[in-house]
Amino acid sequence: MKIAKLIVGSSEKCSNLFYKTGIFVPDDFIYFETDEEKGAIFSSLEFDRAVNSIKKDVKVYRNEEFKAGNYILDILLALAATKKIDKFMVPSDFPIFLGDKLRESGIALEGVEGIFCPEREFKSEFELLQIKEAMRVTELGMKRAYVVLAEANIGNDGFLYWNNELLTSEILKSEIDTTLLRNGAIPDHTIAASFLQSSQPHNEGTGAIYANKVLVIDIFPRLKNSGYYGDLTRTYVKGRASDIEKRAFNAVVESREVAKEFIYSGAIKENSYNAAKNTLEKHGFFTGVDEKGRNYGFFHSLGHGVGLDIHESPRLSKNLTDVLKGGEIVTVEPGVYYPDWGGVRMEDIVYVREQNCEVITQIGDEFEID
Amino acid sequence: MKIAKLIVGSSEKCSNLFYKTGIFVPDDFIYFETDEEKGAIFSSLEFDRAVNSIKKDVKVYRNEEFKAGNYILDILLALAATKKIDKFMVPSDFPIFLGDKLRESGIALEGVEGIFCPEREFKSEFELLQIKEAMRVTELGMKRAYVVLAEANIGNDGFLYWNNELLTSEILKSEIDTTLLRNGAIPDHTIAASFLQSSQPHNEGTGAIYANKVLVIDIFPRLKNSGYYGDLTRTYVKGRASDIEKRAFNAVVESREVAKEFIYSGAIKENSYNAAKNTLEKHGFFTGVDEKGRNYGFFHSLGHGVGLDIHESPRLSKNLTDVLKGGEIVTVEPGVYYPDWGGVRMEDIVYVREQNCEVITQIGDEFEID
Repeated sequence: MKIAKLIVGSSEKCSNLFYKTGIFVPDDFIYFETDEEKGAIFSSLEFDRAVNSIKKDVKVYRNEEFKAGNYILDILLALAATKKIDKFMVPSDFPIFLGDKLRESGIALEGVEGIFCPEREFKSEFELLQIKEAMRVTELGMKRAYVVLAEANIGNDGFLYWNNELLTSEILKSEIDTTLLRNGAIPDHTIAASFLQSSQPHNEGTGAIYANKVLVIDIFPRLKNSGYYGDLTRTYVKGRASDIEKRAFNAVVESREVAKEFIYSGAIKENSYNAAKNTLEKHGFFTGVDEKGRNYGFFHSLGHGVGLDIHESPRLSKNLTDVLKGGEIVTVEPGVYYPDWGGVRMEDIVYVREQNCEVITQIGDEFEID
Repeated sequence: MKIAKLIVGSSEKCSNLFYKTGIFVPDDFIYFETDEEKGAIFSSLEFDRAVNSIKKDVKVYRNEEFKAGNYILDILLALAATKKIDKFMVPSDFPIFLGDKLRESGIALEGVEGIFCPEREFKSEFELLQIKEAMRVTELGMKRAYVVLAEANIGNDGFLYWNNELLTSEILKSEIDTTLLRNGAIPDHTIAASFLQSSQPHNEGTGAIYANKVLVIDIFPRLKNSGYYGDLTRTYVKGRASDIEKRAFNAVVESREVAKEFIYSGAIKENSYNAAKNTLEKHGFFTGVDEKGRNYGFFHSLGHGVGLDIHESPRLSKNLTDVLKGGEIVTVEPGVYYPDWGGVRMEDIVYVREQNCEVITQIGDEFEID
């Protein structure tokens, strides 16, 4: 029985395909891997570009070589016949309609549980450099936000003004995003959430920015050329922070630093999460659901892998009793959120080494901005 | 037998999910539709935001309401049990691993061939307005490119210089993309391909821009707020075009205008494609594969639907003998490409009406720029 790995999709959307081929293509194409060869099959439209830029160990085919028209099912059946493939191993998210059709045609097909390219979890030197580069660009975006906030004035109405205009989340995000673009990275959904909006971790922020209130800024762009992501969160207060905001900021920074001590090759994944949670509780920041059904406290995981996807394996979270193996790049991002005053999140990313972790993030932990 | 429609995914990546719910969420969630209700199931992290911004006809549930932990399979099994659902109808790209697991648990599941939300093909007044808005922003991006090219000087080396710096595809795209961002749209992979690079329709362009050679600019950003796309291609020559470039430009513009006459409610889809192709051939621009295996001529389709996806149904292409029904929004984008001098593509988008099509694109067809 001859078994082949198979991926079908657009490498712009599917990071496994990009990882295997090294080219961004918007339209769907076929990638297969047998014991003898790695191959990719493209439409005429993409063929020339693919030949020029695909990874050297991948052979490029044209749809027409399989004399099967442009329909993916026909091409896959011709591929299986030509290469005498009996069974395809496919990613868990392989499209079910195509899978069922292949099965109906007598080709066995199995969706692989979990991660299709487990090697992606452990970063090469090249990948580490790319993510460091992505972080440098990400930090330029954050520094731009800091400069805008420093230049802004506090109006009598309690809102910020910049260039004689009300400073909104939209304007601040546009300043961040254009900085990212000019430096070779594509912004994703940058977050700049002021005051109560920041109590929802994924609220992107909209409208006027408040003085003397927390502002959570989360930036996670993707390098245009290599496809790797950066990820960075800081929390600022333009003006003066309240007592609870200050205490939350200090507790979150401390919990992030404590958590880093539990990140190294061989460390149990939940330990860093628990260390962060315990530190927050020590400072009085507890987690739960209020009478209105709203979450408060630290109700997300501590971190996630970063690479060709913004969220990838591994996770650092509760109930994960397996260990880090070394070579992973993960975020460390504790945060606390309260519906009555907002949230604080402070996110670094680290590279897991033998005895400890290397902090890739270089930007500091400023909080109040004059 | 009770049947429910089911979609699982991130609404940032899955336009069907966004269409049904109206909210952008980066993490996976569950959407289901029975005869009695439309529902969506979110993690705690997204719950508050979902309640605040989901479409009014969709009921929001929390994962925990199904007492099944956070694993999607468990939640789906609990959902099927609670709502007494026997069978899920899912999109053709539903993940096969999850589908197989549901089947193993006794739930029938069928992948629907083709389009899961056929109603998306026909745009509402709201959608038409959004796409018009997206085109206005897209045109601002193209106008910015035109201004940069007009301001640029031709160096003695035959390349363009702008602000005393070599003008590259990267700089020009950055000018376009920042214009898009400042006007509320997220750039996708903007193309600015000069000279021979433009002979590959999907080559994004890199390096110096040539004077007196064709430059293909293709811009297709997505509105940040509503998620709708614009799509626009123009071809310019800074300086003087050669005879073949001029003839190609005139032939492509003529073929685009001729093709539009074959786009109306009831028109057979391949007719507009054939009209464009015949017009190009009339002017001597033929299609084929050269001795090196490279495509030349008009070797892509005439157009595609535009909406929440940049490429969606319907297509305008050869061998499509079914008809347009009215209400579609499609691109009309003939192009010719030759490995020895480059390519010309001119793309408008149109709204299919009863007797004709309404051209949504407003920007003109400039070619040579002094």
